[in-house]
Amino acid sequence: MKLSTRSLLLVPFLFSIGAGTPRGFFPESAAAQKKWEERYRSLPDPARLRESMRVLAAEPHHLGSEYGEKNARWILARLSEWGLDARIETFHVLFPTPRERLVELVEPTRFRAALAEPPVPGDPTSSQTEKQLPSYNAYSTDGDVTALLVYVNYGVPADYERLEKLGVDVGGKIVIARYGGSWRGIKPKVAAEKGAVGCLIYSDPKDDGYFEGDVYPGGPFRPGSGVQRGSVMDMPLHPGDPLTPGIGAARDAKRLSIAEAKTLTKIPVLPISYGDAQPLLAALSGPVAPAEWRGALPITYHVGPGPAKVHLKAVFDWKTVALHDVIARIEGSAWPDQWVLHGNHHDAWVNGAKDPVSGMVALLEEARAFGTLLKEGWRPKRTIVLAAWDGEEQGLIGSTEWAETHAAELKQKAVAYINTDSNGRGFLSAAGSHSLEAFVNEVAAEIEDPQKKVPVLSRARAKRLADAASAQVRKEVRDRANLAIDALGSGSDYTPFLQHLGIASVNFGFGGEDEGGIYHSIYDDFAWYTRFSDGDFTYGRALAQLTGTAVMRLANADLLPFDFTALSDTVSKYVKEVADLAKETREAEEERNRQIEEKLAWAVADPKKPFVEPKPRTPVPHLDFSELQNASEDLARAAKEYEKAFNAAMEGKSRPAPERLRELNFLLLAAERALTREEGLPRRPWFKHHVYAPGFYTGYGVKTLPGVREAIEEKRWEEVNREAETAARVLAKAAAHIRSAAKPLGSDL
Amino acid sequence: MKLSTRSLLLVPFLFSIGAGTPRGFFPESAAAQKKWEERYRSLPDPARLRESMRVLAAEPHHLGSEYGEKNARWILARLSEWGLDARIETFHVLFPTPRERLVELVEPTRFRAALAEPPVPGDPTSSQTEKQLPSYNAYSTDGDVTALLVYVNYGVPADYERLEKLGVDVGGKIVIARYGGSWRGIKPKVAAEKGAVGCLIYSDPKDDGYFEGDVYPGGPFRPGSGVQRGSVMDMPLHPGDPLTPGIGAARDAKRLSIAEAKTLTKIPVLPISYGDAQPLLAALSGPVAPAEWRGALPITYHVGPGPAKVHLKAVFDWKTVALHDVIARIEGSAWPDQWVLHGNHHDAWVNGAKDPVSGMVALLEEARAFGTLLKEGWRPKRTIVLAAWDGEEQGLIGSTEWAETHAAELKQKAVAYINTDSNGRGFLSAAGSHSLEAFVNEVAAEIEDPQKKVPVLSRARAKRLADAASAQVRKEVRDRANLAIDALGSGSDYTPFLQHLGIASVNFGFGGEDEGGIYHSIYDDFAWYTRFSDGDFTYGRALAQLTGTAVMRLANADLLPFDFTALSDTVSKYVKEVADLAKETREAEEERNRQIEEKLAWAVADPKKPFVEPKPRTPVPHLDFSELQNASEDLARAAKEYEKAFNAAMEGKSRPAPERLRELNFLLLAAERALTREEGLPRRPWFKHHVYAPGFYTGYGVKTLPGVREAIEEKRWEEVNREAETAARVLAKAAAHIRSAAKPLGSDL
Repeated sequence: MKLSTRSLLLVPFLFSIGAGTPRGFFPESAAAQKKWEERYRSLPDPARLRESMRVLAAEPHHLGSEYGEKNARWILARLSEWGLDARIETFHVLFPTPRERLVELVEPTRFRAALAEPPVPGDPTSSQTEKQLPSYNAYSTDGDVTALLVYVNYGVPADYERLEKLGVDVGGKIVIARYGGSWRGIKPKVAAEKGAVGCLIYSDPKDDGYFEGDVYPGGPFRPGSGVQRGSVMDMPLHPGDPLTPGIGAARDAKRLSIAEAKTLTKIPVLPISYGDAQPLLAALSGPVAPAEWRGALPITYHVGPGPAKVHLKAVFDWKTVALHDVIARIEGSAWPDQWVLHGNHHDAWVNGAKDPVSGMVALLEEARAFGTLLKEGWRPKRTIVLAAWDGEEQGLIGSTEWAETHAAELKQKAVAYINTDSNGRGFLSAAGSHSLEAFVNEVAAEIEDPQKKVPVLSRARAKRLADAASAQVRKEVRDRANLAIDALGSGSDYTPFLQHLGIASVNFGFGGEDEGGIYHSIYDDFAWYTRFSDGDFTYGRALAQLTGTAVMRLANADLLPFDFTALSDTVSKYVKEVADLAKETREAEEERNRQIEEKLAWAVADPKKPFVEPKPRTPVPHLDFSELQNASEDLARAAKEYEKAFNAAMEGKSRPAPERLRELNFLLLAAERALTREEGLPRRPWFKHHVYAPGFYTGYGVKTLPGVREAIEEKRWEEVNREAETAARVLAKAAAHIRSAAKPLGSDL
Repeated sequence: MKLSTRSLLLVPFLFSIGAGTPRGFFPESAAAQKKWEERYRSLPDPARLRESMRVLAAEPHHLGSEYGEKNARWILARLSEWGLDARIETFHVLFPTPRERLVELVEPTRFRAALAEPPVPGDPTSSQTEKQLPSYNAYSTDGDVTALLVYVNYGVPADYERLEKLGVDVGGKIVIARYGGSWRGIKPKVAAEKGAVGCLIYSDPKDDGYFEGDVYPGGPFRPGSGVQRGSVMDMPLHPGDPLTPGIGAARDAKRLSIAEAKTLTKIPVLPISYGDAQPLLAALSGPVAPAEWRGALPITYHVGPGPAKVHLKAVFDWKTVALHDVIARIEGSAWPDQWVLHGNHHDAWVNGAKDPVSGMVALLEEARAFGTLLKEGWRPKRTIVLAAWDGEEQGLIGSTEWAETHAAELKQKAVAYINTDSNGRGFLSAAGSHSLEAFVNEVAAEIEDPQKKVPVLSRARAKRLADAASAQVRKEVRDRANLAIDALGSGSDYTPFLQHLGIASVNFGFGGEDEGGIYHSIYDDFAWYTRFSDGDFTYGRALAQLTGTAVMRLANADLLPFDFTALSDTVSKYVKEVADLAKETREAEEERNRQIEEKLAWAVADPKKPFVEPKPRTPVPHLDFSELQNASEDLARAAKEYEKAFNAAMEGKSRPAPERLRELNFLLLAAERALTREEGLPRRPWFKHHVYAPGFYTGYGVKTLPGVREAIEEKRWEEVNREAETAARVLAKAAAHIRSAAKPLGSDL
């Protein structure tokens, strides 16, 4: 009997591992598959995970560093030693590093920011100062500016609307934004759009420091001198090497000049610690910051501008460096031209024990275990590709250049891309293509949570229920057969595969019980990780068990386990969301205009504070989502037709002839591509997926049905109608594609 | 034409002052009334308000102090000088003051709290150290305890539920609670119920300090050494002298012994500044406090218990002091045995420029203006009583003892009690008996906002709209003819009148644009007030204009302006609220029990943190509110019947004979009494009102339909049914009473 995953959680005595026959396996293949999977899951070894981390995180190993290259060679050696066909693919990419960094308060008092993270006792690698990249934001433009300071909260567009109401203009000023609320690259982008001449980004202790818990080394959270490094390239435009958009950065590739590159910032940016930020913020006056803008520093947060005046200087060495992706292959025995991919980056900002080594070592254990299985006689039917990416931290560069280089082949052959990155202790997080939601649930039901000895799926579902904000959400979680997976925005190496090439992708990781504040700092190292995260590496083992099981199933399924009903279900929710968003926006704008007529803002304004009279705006037109709604319903019908045909085939009623399976699987693996358009999204053609994209003004945060949703959010009303039509056509194309896959299964019988 | 108050706001060009014929005046009386009112409103004088504040706040003037008595005599002299019949009524009440105060950290390090507020430059009265009451909580019991410390957030019952989940027990410990979330007296009360042996209360800078704005003397907010004094007597049981509950504290009154007094705390309590609190809180470890418990100190908030160990000692001088209420009367010309009352306290914790002098000086200007009108020939038809209460800060003692002393006469004669207290710059706040809601709206439409030159009603409504949390709330505000007034809990001198005697009451004040943090500290003084609050005393004038207009209308209306439809409307909302609360509680308990069956808490618990398995609770029974709902609907019918009869009378269709007016007005003024029962509320018989009461576990916060609502909140299911029946009988009595008033107006014609 196949247990529904629902009953696994709701009846506690069924908190047991395993979920019956895997989707897409004919009965005669299933038994062998289960046997090999069980053997596989017995192999990943916490002691080896620990040892690999010790090696890989022993020294700073950023893109272009000596130890980074050494790591790539070490990974290559291990993969080869385990019997995998591995090699290094090298690209040549732009990577500026600091020549000069200066942040000083010049008025009304003087203070010079330390811009340094000191070594701490009990943490041996924190003292490798010479080899550490200094704290900075990569792809900041060069600059030397002195100007009044303005505090802009998270520095997202809504914050500037608020500043406008306070009568504060950032034109000609330096802004200081706190980390959070968006991906960091959004902050200098929006600041520059608003006329600012420089940008500081700091970690407020409210979001990332003592407010959350004890600070390092006493506890896991960010200390007063901790700084978050990070890239600020305009990744929502395109990730990868700024000089070779859309093509692989081979040595001889045709490159843009630096002046032509679109993804560098327009103004200089530097990140600072909250220790360095406090004197700057404390020197601001002007309006008191709105309550939700205030952090946890022991000061009154003012907005400015000034009297704090800041001198910000950032000068970079704009060099090109070699980037080393390590790629391993296990050739498929039956269908070698169908590829199942799993990648994790190996580069870090500094030592990067958590980010990315914790995920990298699990991928290595997966590779080692596959090597063992191969020796024991196992063969995948499809080709398995394992990748250790370089240059992720700078802008997904290693994965993007590789995906761009192999785009044609990948679009033809790739079944799915599985991504991992940082891992930790706690709950499974799984996000990605909804055609893989059912598959993800099945796999997660096989993996045991190391602490609670229940399926990681059950624990993830329990967490979803416990965190549910309303009875409605709880009902949805309880009623839905599968645990819903979130959509992917950006922030790791799945982006070129999913959103540029249209390859079904999933990102896996564990976390939530290992909170801390070492992200992109020198303290993300072996000492921190083994004290405060998955110190016994049992979640590292669980991750290797999970991704390896997923890879093995995708590699050997007779029929690829895509389920399009979860996709159509989810898309129908997105369609409802954008229609609701349009309605809410119309109502909000109506209310706004009504309040202007009522002189409400004037009546409540405190005459002792600045007051900016709001101006009426054009009412929001009624927008037409009918075509989109119809297309979404048709997608649902197509998905049901496919599911019916699939089930009939699996029950043996209409099994396709073996020689047709290959062709049918090619149709299935191409289904995600049907959700893309070659033209891409408005103003960012690199992003071709029309259901998932990182937000133009959120960065990592996903925008689903992005063309439509962002047009509404940015109040481009004509574009809303145009994009709704485009999205409808994309969904119609996907429905037709799914029907074309159902047909060989006998759906038209 | 009588403009509806609604149109005053919604059509901006009608932001004009005045609202036509006042309710309850026959046409022939209205013209004279309007003329006298206009004259009245021309009299209050900002310069005199300022000068009175300078005098009254010149020195600390708490209950029992030399300057307090001096102030009472000064007020008496002014009232007499203006031609009013004034006298002092003296009571003798228990008022403990500190002999010894000690708070010290004894482990793991040593720190001794300063327990002192230093003088600040530019603030001359802040240095009157000898005359200032030290910082303490009055009616704390004596105590000398040393114990581990536990941080309990606001120290309300829900916080202890959270602590239980964290596995933390306060038995035998000293708790430290922050101010806010409830009235301060709740904190030691609940702490003692939970077994704590001592209680510290501190002002966290998040709620009351630099988080909100610049601190004194740089800005208006509470500095690091500022302390909130205040009473912690168990006022939700009964306010007033702890030794004479229910009777006036005359010199020879029969008194309880201190041991018999019910309203003293069970454990010692002291208030401290955030400067003093920081070392104590920083020395706690144990679980990190839940996010919403964390304040704005630059530390990680831990719950404890310990390792911080605290020594708390508080010893008091339990003396009886003389209390001086000043009472002035203007005898009514037609109906001297119908009394209109207005009171404001004159005592302060220290200099008390804002609390209470800002309100007191407005009452004095009202008295002076009445004196002028009297000289010009005006005579009120009813008797006006103006009161300057003493001992409010200790527990509404002056008003309570006076109300208890004159209870029989007041229950017979009182038309309404108007209360004022602290006043400031900003928006009108009006709360009280809903039978006066329409009246309050009419009066507030007459008063000009000093800054915006629109009616204070319009500005209050604009504020309500601007702050509305939802479209639903905005719709309610826009659709309702009158601006709804809030119900009164406790916190000022209306409590004995409204909730003990059942006299219709309203509390008026302005504020919201003069935020600060000097409440109950030495910095609440003339220097602070004139810099940061209503520095030009124009809102003081507006308050005098408002309350005087209200008093004059209540004193002279032919038919008292009660409107019972607002009462019945509001009561029907309360009935719906308690029924909804019962339903939500049942659903929440069901969900809780379901999650226990699902083992949800176990599944999501972090095994590295303490975990307390939740235990199932008895399901909530279905509860019967039908009788209450029927009674509420009958009240609505009675209110409509009265309103119809009243309108007919005012239009001259069925005007009662002049000789019947007196009797009819006696029926009207007694209507609020119909909402009381002599037996009072469960476990606190002093509180007799069954629609409004301060919460047993909130203190100042109101509980409407308190018998029913608190029984639900405290999960006493049998009591819910019993109290719902009781409340239904009270509403039925009120409906019958209102019908008895409608009858003489010809409602039965």
